[in-house]
Amino acid sequence: MKVRTYFSPAEVDSAPMAGSTAVVIDVIRATSTIVDALANGARAIYPTISTEDAIRLANSLGREDTLLCGERKGLKVEGFDLGNSPGEFTREKVEGKRLVMSTTNGTRAFLAAEGAERVVAASFLNLSAVARSVAGAEKLVLICAGKEDRFSLDDALCAGLIIRALVEEGIQPEGSVLLDDASGAALALARSYGPDVSVLRETAAGAALVEIGLEADLSRCAELDRHELIPEMHDRMIRIPGGE
Amino acid sequence: MKVRTYFSPAEVDSAPMAGSTAVVIDVIRATSTIVDALANGARAIYPTISTEDAIRLANSLGREDTLLCGERKGLKVEGFDLGNSPGEFTREKVEGKRLVMSTTNGTRAFLAAEGAERVVAASFLNLSAVARSVAGAEKLVLICAGKEDRFSLDDALCAGLIIRALVEEGIQPEGSVLLDDASGAALALARSYGPDVSVLRETAAGAALVEIGLEADLSRCAELDRHELIPEMHDRMIRIPGGE
Repeated sequence: MKVRTYFSPAEVDSAPMAGSTAVVIDVIRATSTIVDALANGARAIYPTISTEDAIRLANSLGREDTLLCGERKGLKVEGFDLGNSPGEFTREKVEGKRLVMSTTNGTRAFLAAEGAERVVAASFLNLSAVARSVAGAEKLVLICAGKEDRFSLDDALCAGLIIRALVEEGIQPEGSVLLDDASGAALALARSYGPDVSVLRETAAGAALVEIGLEADLSRCAELDRHELIPEMHDRMIRIPGGE
Repeated sequence: MKVRTYFSPAEVDSAPMAGSTAVVIDVIRATSTIVDALANGARAIYPTISTEDAIRLANSLGREDTLLCGERKGLKVEGFDLGNSPGEFTREKVEGKRLVMSTTNGTRAFLAAEGAERVVAASFLNLSAVARSVAGAEKLVLICAGKEDRFSLDDALCAGLIIRALVEEGIQPEGSVLLDDASGAALALARSYGPDVSVLRETAAGAALVEIGLEADLSRCAELDRHELIPEMHDRMIRIPGGE
């Protein structure tokens, strides 16, 4: 297995994506929210970049069973049904619904993954399940959403923990995992920090959440292996494979 | 002191550069070669991206005391005087000369730094001297050359070792250094790996050098604090301040 890690979507060149399994990571908070929403029965998530696109898509899907979700500067977009806090996506609110979700960094990461053979979403919440699910892939590509096209520690750490699970928990046979520079660095970060909510709090994304009063989101985003599910994206729609 | 680290020139946004001290890092090999060349008496280095620009500039500077230096795919450009191996830049060859140097990643990193108040070049060879020299800067920006706009472990490690020198060796007062996500990650990498030639050999850039028979360059690039000098760039010309 060859593993490439991109610390932001800006780094992604499309060539190596063909034939690969891509893992999209936006710990704070898009992929954490997606995992929680699907766990609570949402039918599918439609990532969009602009709020205008989100509104247009929600209207064309039919507003009766579609929720508009997303944030700008961390806070719910005015007029939207939900923001981007995992805790908002309760079963009561999202079961059976389609979610059109407008986030900046997260959506860019999903779009960067489009050339891949398989695209899955990872966060701390489903980390071990993702690691088991991508085992055996010949080419694994980890795409961190980052923050405004730059390195973001929360995503890099999640990438490193997935790599650590692959190489240290015997999911992949020993010596069968070839890491590029960034993957090796991510693994070193995972060994150095481990999965720790206090680290998330110190990241730029985490500190920004604390500042706007959303500290509770951090504890949720840091919960390791809360769920077993693997969200997959096909045709710009993210859902649990085998689901409706 | 606020420290920002960019793992590749593609990440750099120009806004935070104003009023900052920028450190350009291309361990394998541009900034290592620059340090060695200046230590051996070269008058100035002129970084250019294309070989055509290099030839044009060398002709306009006057070929009698100007050397054309640079590589493509690691090897000396045909017709050039020198390649990009630090060991080539002996006193015999470079003393009193102007060097026009065409490298891809390294030059892009220098250009990305242009908006900064002060721009210095760092490698393992002059690491501690650089750390002491940038102490006291209010805004410090570390720009890794990376490899084809992606993360490169050798440069990230050098950035981390500079940060470690600043925070652990009492160069900056305790608690006075604010690190962004990437700077914190670089510091963690420095603590995890240390300055070690065997790490350089495992990087993508290092492995590529070994493959073309230039393994000796790696040992040179990994030599910590061989020199005390601080190359500075003004008007796209790199030299030792106070020199001719």
